Amino acid sequence: MKIEIENILPMDIEKRSFEIITDELGEVKLDPKHEPIIKRAIHTAADFEYVNNLYFSEGAVDKAITAIKNGATIITDTQMVKAGVNKKVVAKFGGEVICFMCDDDVAKEAKERGVTRAIVSMERASKIDRPLIFAIGNAPTALIKLYEMIESGLLKPELVIGVPVGFVNVVESKELIIESNVTSIVARGRKGGSNIAAAICNALLYMASEGERE
Amino acid sequence: MKIEIENILPMDIEKRSFEIITDELGEVKLDPKHEPIIKRAIHTAADFEYVNNLYFSEGAVDKAITAIKNGATIITDTQMVKAGVNKKVVAKFGGEVICFMCDDDVAKEAKERGVTRAIVSMERASKIDRPLIFAIGNAPTALIKLYEMIESGLLKPELVIGVPVGFVNVVESKELIIESNVTSIVARGRKGGSNIAAAICNALLYMASEGERE
Repeated sequence: MKIEIENILPMDIEKRSFEIITDELGEVKLDPKHEPIIKRAIHTAADFEYVNNLYFSEGAVDKAITAIKNGATIITDTQMVKAGVNKKVVAKFGGEVICFMCDDDVAKEAKERGVTRAIVSMERASKIDRPLIFAIGNAPTALIKLYEMIESGLLKPELVIGVPVGFVNVVESKELIIESNVTSIVARGRKGGSNIAAAICNALLYMASEGERE
Repeated sequence: MKIEIENILPMDIEKRSFEIITDELGEVKLDPKHEPIIKRAIHTAADFEYVNNLYFSEGAVDKAITAIKNGATIITDTQMVKAGVNKKVVAKFGGEVICFMCDDDVAKEAKERGVTRAIVSMERASKIDRPLIFAIGNAPTALIKLYEMIESGLLKPELVIGVPVGFVNVVESKELIIESNVTSIVARGRKGGSNIAAAICNALLYMASEGERE
């Protein structure tokens, strides 16, 4: 096999990737509000299933962009999501990205109570008195805890990005979030992950930034 | 739809997930050396394509485990891979995980030379005089640079985990690594990502740790 490397400038790689995705989508029609998010999810996993499995609650994208512009704090359930979010853009709007998962006292409390660190992390985040966006890429228990706090009126997030990946309680936790009527973007089914959570955050951040330039 | 959440202890979630993966693989036979790595890749993306697309060079797993036990340094091409690798286990063997991508002078040099930060990062890594494992989850340019340095005798890594994801030069860069005869684990095709790179590292780290306990 002859291996041919395309000669392309670093800055053009992402643009070319999105062109290829658009080409391969062909006749598939996407809601223009959802399109940048769906395409970035496809881009981050090279997986076209994200055309069909992403759920957006009504007005989710506009509400998310408003929240970002208001400097919302982004809470993640893994260091990987935090690492993947474009923190420069978050900071530009006065926001920040927080992950409690690696705090020693979170691990300690979770062990004592026999719950996941994700549950303790979500409880801590719920006490932050600022507009909150949750980006959950790993822990279904985080989503279930968010659902419980939302239903009992303890938490009113601006947006829940619900994209944990996996095999145990993952599908169910995502359906709970959809059922709760919170503003949400959810990857239905088993797929998702820290990379998808970060990609959805970044798509929204870039959409919010475009608005800025207008 | 009635949403039923399975009642399961935090510590049992991963075990149960692997049981489900094993169940669903059914009659599929995996090389026992590759099995923990393939299953962890499936686990991290909920994507059974990793049964078929993971390439292992001959003896790759044994060589990787030896390198880890010798305290190999793991070089990543994103902060996300670094965030995902179990650094406690790496440290236990005397190794560390390094990512040069966010260093200010890497960005500066890349801009001046009109190359990707990944290329500059790989060049810097090649100067580290210790056994090296490269875990590349994002940048095909990193893999291409590694290929060039390996072919010209400038670099002799213990292992290259080549799993960038995407649409431009991704498939090709991975085939180059396979062709180079370096010890490698590669996700053929477009799929991969920071999550897969971290999952493969962690599978190897856990295999190395099991050996320790024997």
